[in-house]
Amino acid sequence: MPFQTLAEFCDLLGRMPAPDAVAVTAAEMRNGQLTKPQGSLGQLEALAIWMAGWQGTDRPRVDQPQIAIFAGNHGVAVRGVSAFPAEVTVQMVANFAHGGAAINQLAKAFGAKLDVHALDLHRPTADFTEGPAMTGADLVTALRTGFDAVDPKAHLFVAGEMGIGNTTVAAALAAALFGGTGWAGRGTGVDDAGLARKEAAVAAGLARHAAVLGDPLDVLRCLGGREIAAMAGAILGARMARVPVILDGFIACSAAAVLHKAAPGALDHCVAGHLSAEGAHGRLLAELGKEPLLSLGLRLGEGSGAALAIGVVQGAVACHSGMATFAEAGVAAG
Amino acid sequence: MPFQTLAEFCDLLGRMPAPDAVAVTAAEMRNGQLTKPQGSLGQLEALAIWMAGWQGTDRPRVDQPQIAIFAGNHGVAVRGVSAFPAEVTVQMVANFAHGGAAINQLAKAFGAKLDVHALDLHRPTADFTEGPAMTGADLVTALRTGFDAVDPKAHLFVAGEMGIGNTTVAAALAAALFGGTGWAGRGTGVDDAGLARKEAAVAAGLARHAAVLGDPLDVLRCLGGREIAAMAGAILGARMARVPVILDGFIACSAAAVLHKAAPGALDHCVAGHLSAEGAHGRLLAELGKEPLLSLGLRLGEGSGAALAIGVVQGAVACHSGMATFAEAGVAAG
Repeated sequence: MPFQTLAEFCDLLGRMPAPDAVAVTAAEMRNGQLTKPQGSLGQLEALAIWMAGWQGTDRPRVDQPQIAIFAGNHGVAVRGVSAFPAEVTVQMVANFAHGGAAINQLAKAFGAKLDVHALDLHRPTADFTEGPAMTGADLVTALRTGFDAVDPKAHLFVAGEMGIGNTTVAAALAAALFGGTGWAGRGTGVDDAGLARKEAAVAAGLARHAAVLGDPLDVLRCLGGREIAAMAGAILGARMARVPVILDGFIACSAAAVLHKAAPGALDHCVAGHLSAEGAHGRLLAELGKEPLLSLGLRLGEGSGAALAIGVVQGAVACHSGMATFAEAGVAAG
Repeated sequence: MPFQTLAEFCDLLGRMPAPDAVAVTAAEMRNGQLTKPQGSLGQLEALAIWMAGWQGTDRPRVDQPQIAIFAGNHGVAVRGVSAFPAEVTVQMVANFAHGGAAINQLAKAFGAKLDVHALDLHRPTADFTEGPAMTGADLVTALRTGFDAVDPKAHLFVAGEMGIGNTTVAAALAAALFGGTGWAGRGTGVDDAGLARKEAAVAAGLARHAAVLGDPLDVLRCLGGREIAAMAGAILGARMARVPVILDGFIACSAAAVLHKAAPGALDHCVAGHLSAEGAHGRLLAELGKEPLLSLGLRLGEGSGAALAIGVVQGAVACHSGMATFAEAGVAAG
């Protein structure tokens, strides 16, 4: 049993594994001998070496990536913060199950295993403007669902989400963790009035829970939601198994931000996959100290931006692990 | 026989096929009905619709991409314009044949067929600072090698190159076609003295061939080189077969630029795959009116940046062609 209480979860944050320094050194050495001008594979080189460290080998692989989608419903959705009705969460979970969503196609395209975890959709979290979104027990259950969802044999892990209203929750989390205003964005496509309702909900939530803003996990409990807590649990679960992670967009990064604030270095096993078109994602990535691999204007969620970046990581490790050295190929090293 | 003379090649430039407007309309319609908020797949949506137009179907596919690498040697290499000796061109062609280069790994990662065409490596083009790099017959042969290299059944085509000294040739082409200075860059990694030699060679080449600067194909003949001419031929070959193309870095784009200057719209079937770290590539892409899909700091050539972008296009068409519509999935459309 990895953890049964919040205290035990926090305890794990205090003993996270580091990358394998021997594998990193071996991978750096190998990178310098491959048949290419030094540095000519750009960011792919650092990416492959980073993968080597977490996989503990100088020849990393990504033929078994895993994507896990977490779905949750949010009390705050009653405040008119989304362009879509809350029923869409359960409808999209059915769409995932039947293989009809964007993430199903991306998982297939990059050979990823896809799992979907619906978290108590019939029982939305409480409206965070009126009280805590979750109880402590709810939070632990959600964190644990995420933690247990990670396949320790996966070569790479992506956590994605579905949950009508959850850009508002993510904005509230970001505001609570990093301060400032303007974290709310257009989400699935709200108009100006909808955006104003999102901003009002975030402000009301922060005022309501002002007493807990210094404690990242209590912030998560009070603002929600279950799928965001599950993603935080999954990111830590991947870390404990030394599985590298590609972070998705604004909502997935709000989950990652909870860990980042709770324990420095908690995201060392994560890269940012894609800069979302959701307005404040770039600002959130800057807070996390992450540069996105891609910037293609997606704002869908479902882990889609990170899934697209699996291809980049596959390209990086394919080059690193498969190329000949100058000596093997009989090529003059310049 | 598509062409046997330069006049016949130019004739083809006057009767290039357009994308299938019916397929574009059908794909736009389909895109609007898929289970996602409108526009939420960002650039992937336009990319899939563009693919639909060139493939002539509202459900494009990219399971059979093709990469063709063209290799050539350059007289101007004797001027000390590269960090590597000219022998490396033939050594790298052997590395391609044995599967040891970066492009071999990327081709495998994205399921692409890879062909390599070595163009008279034992017979470098003439030093363009002293005279025309190629004869008219040489140019036609090289264009034709590229044209014939395209598999008309390929779902997507990438032209890549290998040729010690060819960033100097590409810089000279860019300067000749678009004017200005500062087109030379670090290539495989020259020092300041090497960069000065590149700039001097470009200036000498332009002075030597000042009389032909108004004719893009004569510019190509005078400055070279064979692999660049082959890439130009291949890009037109793909166009005649309505095969969409991903453009690679600075050198591949210098080949594309010849067509662009010779015939407006000649690159409508092309997207830019990746912004190279070679200094002037962004400026060249701006001249071509193309925004790169990726920007990951590669500067290797071999078609590697474009090959990496195959994954993005595969993701785009997988979503477009595989997703369920709102009606099929029973999801409320917002």
